[in-house]
Amino acid sequence: MKGQNQTLKIDGIDKEILRNLMEDARRPILEIARKVGISGAAIHQRLRKLEASGLIAGSKFIIDPKVLGYKTMAFVGVYLDKAVSNPKAVKQLRDIPEVIECHYTTGNWSIFIKILCRDNEHLMVVLNKNIQAIEGVSRTETFISLDQQIDRQIKI
Amino acid sequence: MKGQNQTLKIDGIDKEILRNLMEDARRPILEIARKVGISGAAIHQRLRKLEASGLIAGSKFIIDPKVLGYKTMAFVGVYLDKAVSNPKAVKQLRDIPEVIECHYTTGNWSIFIKILCRDNEHLMVVLNKNIQAIEGVSRTETFISLDQQIDRQIKI
Amino acid sequence: MKGQNQTLKIDGIDKEILRNLMEDARRPILEIARKVGISGAAIHQRLRKLEASGLIAGSKFIIDPKVLGYKTMAFVGVYLDKAVSNPKAVKQLRDIPEVIECHYTTGNWSIFIKILCRDNEHLMVVLNKNIQAIEGVSRTETFISLDQQIDRQIKI
Amino acid sequence: MKGQNQTLKIDGIDKEILRNLMEDARRPILEIARKVGISGAAIHQRLRKLEASGLIAGSKFIIDPKVLGYKTMAFVGVYLDKAVSNPKAVKQLRDIPEVIECHYTTGNWSIFIKILCRDNEHLMVVLNKNIQAIEGVSRTETFISLDQQIDRQIKI
Amino acid sequence: MKGQNQTLKIDGIDKEILRNLMEDARRPILEIARKVGISGAAIHQRLRKLEASGLIAGSKFIIDPKVLGYKTMAFVGVYLDKAVSNPKAVKQLRDIPEVIECHYTTGNWSIFIKILCRDNEHLMVVLNKNIQAIEGVSRTETFISLDQQIDRQIKI
Amino acid sequence: MKGQNQTLKIDGIDKEILRNLMEDARRPILEIARKVGISGAAIHQRLRKLEASGLIAGSKFIIDPKVLGYKTMAFVGVYLDKAVSNPKAVKQLRDIPEVIECHYTTGNWSIFIKILCRDNEHLMVVLNKNIQAIEGVSRTETFISLDQQIDRQIKI
Amino acid sequence: MKGQNQTLKIDGIDKEILRNLMEDARRPILEIARKVGISGAAIHQRLRKLEASGLIAGSKFIIDPKVLGYKTMAFVGVYLDKAVSNPKAVKQLRDIPEVIECHYTTGNWSIFIKILCRDNEHLMVVLNKNIQAIEGVSRTETFISLDQQIDRQIKI
Amino acid sequence: MKGQNQTLKIDGIDKEILRNLMEDARRPILEIARKVGISGAAIHQRLRKLEASGLIAGSKFIIDPKVLGYKTMAFVGVYLDKAVSNPKAVKQLRDIPEVIECHYTTGNWSIFIKILCRDNEHLMVVLNKNIQAIEGVSRTETFISLDQQIDRQIKI
Repeated sequence: MKGQNQTLKIDGIDKEILRNLMEDARRPILEIARKVGISGAAIHQRLRKLEASGLIAGSKFIIDPKVLGYKTMAFVGVYLDKAVSNPKAVKQLRDIPEVIECHYTTGNWSIFIKILCRDNEHLMVVLNKNIQAIEGVSRTETFISLDQQIDRQIKI
Repeated sequence: MKGQNQTLKIDGIDKEILRNLMEDARRPILEIARKVGISGAAIHQRLRKLEASGLIAGSKFIIDPKVLGYKTMAFVGVYLDKAVSNPKAVKQLRDIPEVIECHYTTGNWSIFIKILCRDNEHLMVVLNKNIQAIEGVSRTETFISLDQQIDRQIKI
Repeated sequence: MKGQNQTLKIDGIDKEILRNLMEDARRPILEIARKVGISGAAIHQRLRKLEASGLIAGSKFIIDPKVLGYKTMAFVGVYLDKAVSNPKAVKQLRDIPEVIECHYTTGNWSIFIKILCRDNEHLMVVLNKNIQAIEGVSRTETFISLDQQIDRQIKI
Repeated sequence: MKGQNQTLKIDGIDKEILRNLMEDARRPILEIARKVGISGAAIHQRLRKLEASGLIAGSKFIIDPKVLGYKTMAFVGVYLDKAVSNPKAVKQLRDIPEVIECHYTTGNWSIFIKILCRDNEHLMVVLNKNIQAIEGVSRTETFISLDQQIDRQIKI
Repeated sequence: MKGQNQTLKIDGIDKEILRNLMEDARRPILEIARKVGISGAAIHQRLRKLEASGLIAGSKFIIDPKVLGYKTMAFVGVYLDKAVSNPKAVKQLRDIPEVIECHYTTGNWSIFIKILCRDNEHLMVVLNKNIQAIEGVSRTETFISLDQQIDRQIKI
Repeated sequence: MKGQNQTLKIDGIDKEILRNLMEDARRPILEIARKVGISGAAIHQRLRKLEASGLIAGSKFIIDPKVLGYKTMAFVGVYLDKAVSNPKAVKQLRDIPEVIECHYTTGNWSIFIKILCRDNEHLMVVLNKNIQAIEGVSRTETFISLDQQIDRQIKI
Repeated sequence: MKGQNQTLKIDGIDKEILRNLMEDARRPILEIARKVGISGAAIHQRLRKLEASGLIAGSKFIIDPKVLGYKTMAFVGVYLDKAVSNPKAVKQLRDIPEVIECHYTTGNWSIFIKILCRDNEHLMVVLNKNIQAIEGVSRTETFISLDQQIDRQIKI
Repeated sequence: MKGQNQTLKIDGIDKEILRNLMEDARRPILEIARKVGISGAAIHQRLRKLEASGLIAGSKFIIDPKVLGYKTMAFVGVYLDKAVSNPKAVKQLRDIPEVIECHYTTGNWSIFIKILCRDNEHLMVVLNKNIQAIEGVSRTETFISLDQQIDRQIKI
């Protein structure tokens, strides 16, 4: 039985398989098998085990939002009147499609979110009409990401 | 010819295909074809077109870092002595594997990063030994994400 | 047809005409014609085109408010209780003649204004009687421009 | 002789003439004469007097920078290492065409500027390459004007 | 008639007389007369003129509050809910004997006061029982003067 | 023997005498004697005792600096590079006549001063030429007193 | 009779006894007697006197909370709506076992507390469910102690 | 074998023994034995086990520093030039006897300390002469604990 605080140990072959699929989720298993030097069946077995462990959270097509015209990424620190309303506020933030991350953080903000908008004008509308309309939101502090220079998963 | 400021227009079928693959990058094309109601060849053709447009940035296996023992996510606002050293600082941040995002932002920080560590002790080591050792870093402000409540891509 | 995101292209002769009139709106067209080396009629035609494009927002006599005794310029960051009341607050700010600019900004203020007063005492009255009396204004942060060292339009 | 601290007194007719020209600097004098009810010569005489007093700082064609593609207006609070270098810093700021206002202010910044850029990317370049390269600039705090809701001269 | 903005001009003899009395308000007029080299009557006449001009605001015995056990001097920035209540708040501050200065200031506080208490414990009581009990006071920021190194009037 | 931490005890008659002289330092002793109901000699004796105790720090003519044209009072929080240079910095502040108070305070500033200038322009010169020229001063934060509503000594 | 402001004077032998017991409260009196060079009875007598003076506040077993799984220590600055509710808020803080220190402080927070939690997740629960549920708490600012490098009593 | 991340489990009898000794470290074992209802030998055995586990960090006489004249407790946020010098700075802080806690914290300070001084004047000396003299300390922010309302160990 695996306890809550135990950390999964994975070997070098697991890592090599994962690195291949973290680069390209649609890479054929047989190609990976050839590179790693074990059979495709063995890879399938290992993947099933890693999925069961919860390590593999899924696989996703990553789209470039800039191509769809989403060019303004911003971080917003949100002050709530009473943090008791935190779960309620998060529930409403979930209904705003431009909100792509939401964190409960230490520091001076109650909630810290990342939003993705088409341009600065769209950002203003999202802030003014959607976020600041949420009950309990008393004030927001916004800063814009002028350039994202690193975006990656943790190395394994 | 596609200009820098032009936004890609995609139709409803493109969107349905992408939504399927954004949920699960390894979903078989034929299964998607059945759901969408066009041939697999047509889907392949559309995907090639979307890849050419730059909209599809790739596909990735997403791993859950908590399973590997990475439990402390933090945001770090970095003050540089002179922002001229920005590209140099970013180059060195890239060599720190715990740094998973790096932004050039408006507001009072020169650089804003997201880091993922095993625990608070590991965070202290990364801050103290790695980040603050970078030339030009004068001061950092850290806040910890106690809970990430939303994490998703933009809706299409 | 001119789209919302398209940028007007103007040639060197347009620029020279505009620079002349940006310096002095009442400069006679014939004088400009001589300098630029085309006919006055051609200049009139170009000006009509530039006006139609929206580039020329108008021409104004610029008065020096110091001569009328307006010597204290200040910036005021305004915190609103709920930014929902933003349009209402702006409406009331418009009725205060000392408010000469009003911006909806990122950062920690909801609204950012520039005001022009006769002296510090007048500034206090405007802050205390007019701005802070607006419903929804919870707090203001004022800083005074002790000297304006640059004031110009964008170069063309 | 006019002392430094004396305030110019102007009568109602002066005000009406000025209001006309502040609206449209190219409005024909005869049209104004008809509206105000005095001769064109009298208007010319009054204008000469107002120019001599320094009240009329000039007349300008106002262009709409958005039409030329300048869509990101930002305010930048600049911290200098030693404010002694203030005049030197201002001199270099004058060479950056995107800087359209520069103030010496009370509060926590040494210098406060308004800049006008094409977009957020351009803003990043101006901040990173131009402003932060100025000797003595230790740090900047930027906030973006998402919408300018009031922009006018003082009422006379 | 003396206008509001006119500045009093005083000559060197006025200055010498004032400097003497600013040092010690009870210094005999005859002693000053001898030092300055004019008659006591002339000094009385000049003093009457300076009093009439409003320059002499009075003369005071200055006591050293430390000798009475007042050892903790503090500055308190006061945030009001709505600065409209400013005059009301000031009225109540006047009733707190420990408040020895009160200013309406630019910056982020609505009111800025100087208070003098016996010790840190007394300060806590004044803050907690008196100042923060005033209607409209939402928050205070206190800093203690550990040592006052300069305390003087403007030089004349 | 009077220890450092002992507080002077004064009786009701002492207090009445002091209150009279704190109101007007030149009030004749005989007038006070009549009001208090003891002999002038007794008052002289008590005053000698109070002077010996250090309670009476002196008596001063108070002049109204506004009458001399000093209309801008400001508070300046000074950041020093290293507070070690505090005594040196204070020594130089003492040479700036506009500095009328200087405190070593808790909170985020190293030194906190009150300055009195003729107008905002004079303030800028004092900040820029005098205060920020002091070695070790890295940054200043200024806020202006728009109105001083309370100014008094501690009640006895 | 011992007054409130008087400081206890203790001699070298008192200090040596105390230092021994501050290191280890269960150290046998006879062992200390041998080291200090006086009789055990004399030590008992001196301890009784020091207890009577209030200097000895008690003796405690110190447990290492990390061994019980308490690994996240944090400081929380608490803003109250009105500091009048301070005693009420403190009363409720006392009922939260994770709160191990509570201070009424100068500066920008109304209350400053130290809390000890099992991990960051537990910290979030304490902040969100317990502290921010207290009536009058409007906002909190948390910072985590990543490492405690000094923890000792004052030297005697 | 006990791993680094494992949490000690203790039963109700252990807890009762510890609670007794946390209240009074010199309480006789036999008295505790009677209260808990097991033999003194069993208690000794359990204490040896708890000591071996590291849970018992020692036992200390707690002295009340106020009785020795230490009446001003303050918190100091320390900014270092480069946090690399953190261990060096901590080493020097250890040599200042007034520093009783030192933390490496998230948030905007590099180091956060608690100091205990006789009075505000002593605090100023410690800040000015000792702490700010440490190489690498660029700035400090001090706030004073006017009253400590809770001070206890974690409940077991």
